[in-house]
Amino acid sequence: MTKFDKVVISGVGLIGGSFARALKQAGAVRTVVGLGRSRTSLERARELGIIDAIGDDVAEAVKGADLVLLAAPVAQTGPILSSLLPHLEPHTVVTDAGSTKTDVTEAARKVLGSRISQFVPGHPIAGRETNGPDAAIPDLYRGKKVVLTPVPENSAADVERVAEAWRLCGAIIHRLSPQEHDKVFASVSHLPHLLAFALVDDIARKPHADLLFQYAASGFRDFTRIAGSSPEMWRDISLANQEALLAELDAYMAQLAAVRAQLAAGDGKGLEAVYSNAREARERWIAAIETAEAPPPKDLAE
Amino acid sequence: MTKFDKVVISGVGLIGGSFARALKQAGAVRTVVGLGRSRTSLERARELGIIDAIGDDVAEAVKGADLVLLAAPVAQTGPILSSLLPHLEPHTVVTDAGSTKTDVTEAARKVLGSRISQFVPGHPIAGRETNGPDAAIPDLYRGKKVVLTPVPENSAADVERVAEAWRLCGAIIHRLSPQEHDKVFASVSHLPHLLAFALVDDIARKPHADLLFQYAASGFRDFTRIAGSSPEMWRDISLANQEALLAELDAYMAQLAAVRAQLAAGDGKGLEAVYSNAREARERWIAAIETAEAPPPKDLAE
Repeated sequence: MTKFDKVVISGVGLIGGSFARALKQAGAVRTVVGLGRSRTSLERARELGIIDAIGDDVAEAVKGADLVLLAAPVAQTGPILSSLLPHLEPHTVVTDAGSTKTDVTEAARKVLGSRISQFVPGHPIAGRETNGPDAAIPDLYRGKKVVLTPVPENSAADVERVAEAWRLCGAIIHRLSPQEHDKVFASVSHLPHLLAFALVDDIARKPHADLLFQYAASGFRDFTRIAGSSPEMWRDISLANQEALLAELDAYMAQLAAVRAQLAAGDGKGLEAVYSNAREARERWIAAIETAEAPPPKDLAE
Repeated sequence: MTKFDKVVISGVGLIGGSFARALKQAGAVRTVVGLGRSRTSLERARELGIIDAIGDDVAEAVKGADLVLLAAPVAQTGPILSSLLPHLEPHTVVTDAGSTKTDVTEAARKVLGSRISQFVPGHPIAGRETNGPDAAIPDLYRGKKVVLTPVPENSAADVERVAEAWRLCGAIIHRLSPQEHDKVFASVSHLPHLLAFALVDDIARKPHADLLFQYAASGFRDFTRIAGSSPEMWRDISLANQEALLAELDAYMAQLAAVRAQLAAGDGKGLEAVYSNAREARERWIAAIETAEAPPPKDLAE
């Protein structure tokens, strides 16, 4: 069931590498070619069997490609597309894995012009704490969501080809507009990252930071886990999604001001209402995740 | 090496129950008597062998006790001490496991008067997501910190008895003043809890909350794990540590305002500095924890 004759991955780290591994495991691709800035990563990816060849020459690399996945930091979308454009065949579909979609779509449109029809923006909601080709695993996307945010120019067939590739990786396809996508992720991903980074930076700058960190325990560890993410990547995401992120941050700062007023007034009832509502909402959410992520019945799984 | 003839645990859930289990496993106690509001919990604790007897009569329960541990919500410290006081023998040392220390010490001083000398306030830095007697495990405190915040009236011998009990549970003893303790934990524990509760409540109240939660992933799950904690317990802690928590919250809100200004100005350099400083501080902290918690060399462990 080789669905794709040739797939090109630009960026052979966790995200791109796992996509390649998953397609290979599904027997869905004949050849995977890797592109990227780091020769070391490309060589390692080939050594690991993630890619079959290193695309030393871009023209050669994209020649005859069915599908190209951009899996590099979002700020590189424009430059990478510029390098591909002169060699892009009309039947090749390009997609990406960036965490923001409005800016990626704008950058793509600027570079590709009318050939924006060949670019189907996407965002796989999956990750791990490690990175690089060695972190790539075939099951990264199994049961996970991939949000596609097609542009009006995309043909239904091209969107379906991208969706099919992700489905072969075990993912579940969702569709949002780029603006909806960016608002949603500003709220449940970008804001929490900013808050965690801000908290750890705040504590680290206090004169008695060493004493404070000494008593930080497992709750703090979980709360700040996302502050272990790449500062460069999150700087880019923050700026790329500036407008939506500012709106979410303002709403949160207003919420903190309200909770502060309850605390200052000794309003135990009010605080408890906030805390209870939060716990109940989180419990419902966790229960919903667990239902959605439950393994299929045994006879179906086999 | 029976160090304690009789230990009384007021509150036989995770914290009190694990203390009893650890002392029993160390062969350090002859009899453990349980006190508490929930008959069901007490009976379950006896069934599980956590306690040897249920203290139906407080006078009988504390008679001849070496050590009493209060492991109930901090707001109950005063009432519990009031019930114990008429029966408390002069040689009995009382300690607690509350998450705030200034208010606990004040409540204890109010009730105990000159007999405050018999009360050594403490706070084990350990926990799990589950609760009740069934959650109690003998290893909960192994390698964990216990902060003692003695009052000037405590004798060195009594402080040492409490320290010794916790050491027998595998814990490492630290000492802070109640005020230092409360400032430290406002920063690294109470504030993060408030922030997580506030974020989930904020999202849950939005009209499109269901859509948002649908795309929340593992980063959000970790960030908000502490918002799964008991609302009543955290209401009490927030109010008990109101002053220090307000100070930390104000500092954090000022930090958020500064980061907001960077984001609004498109100051990528500034944002990256905050994010990098946070990640580096967190990495140093994790490395320090891992060194501290590393298992001893094999010949020492055996």
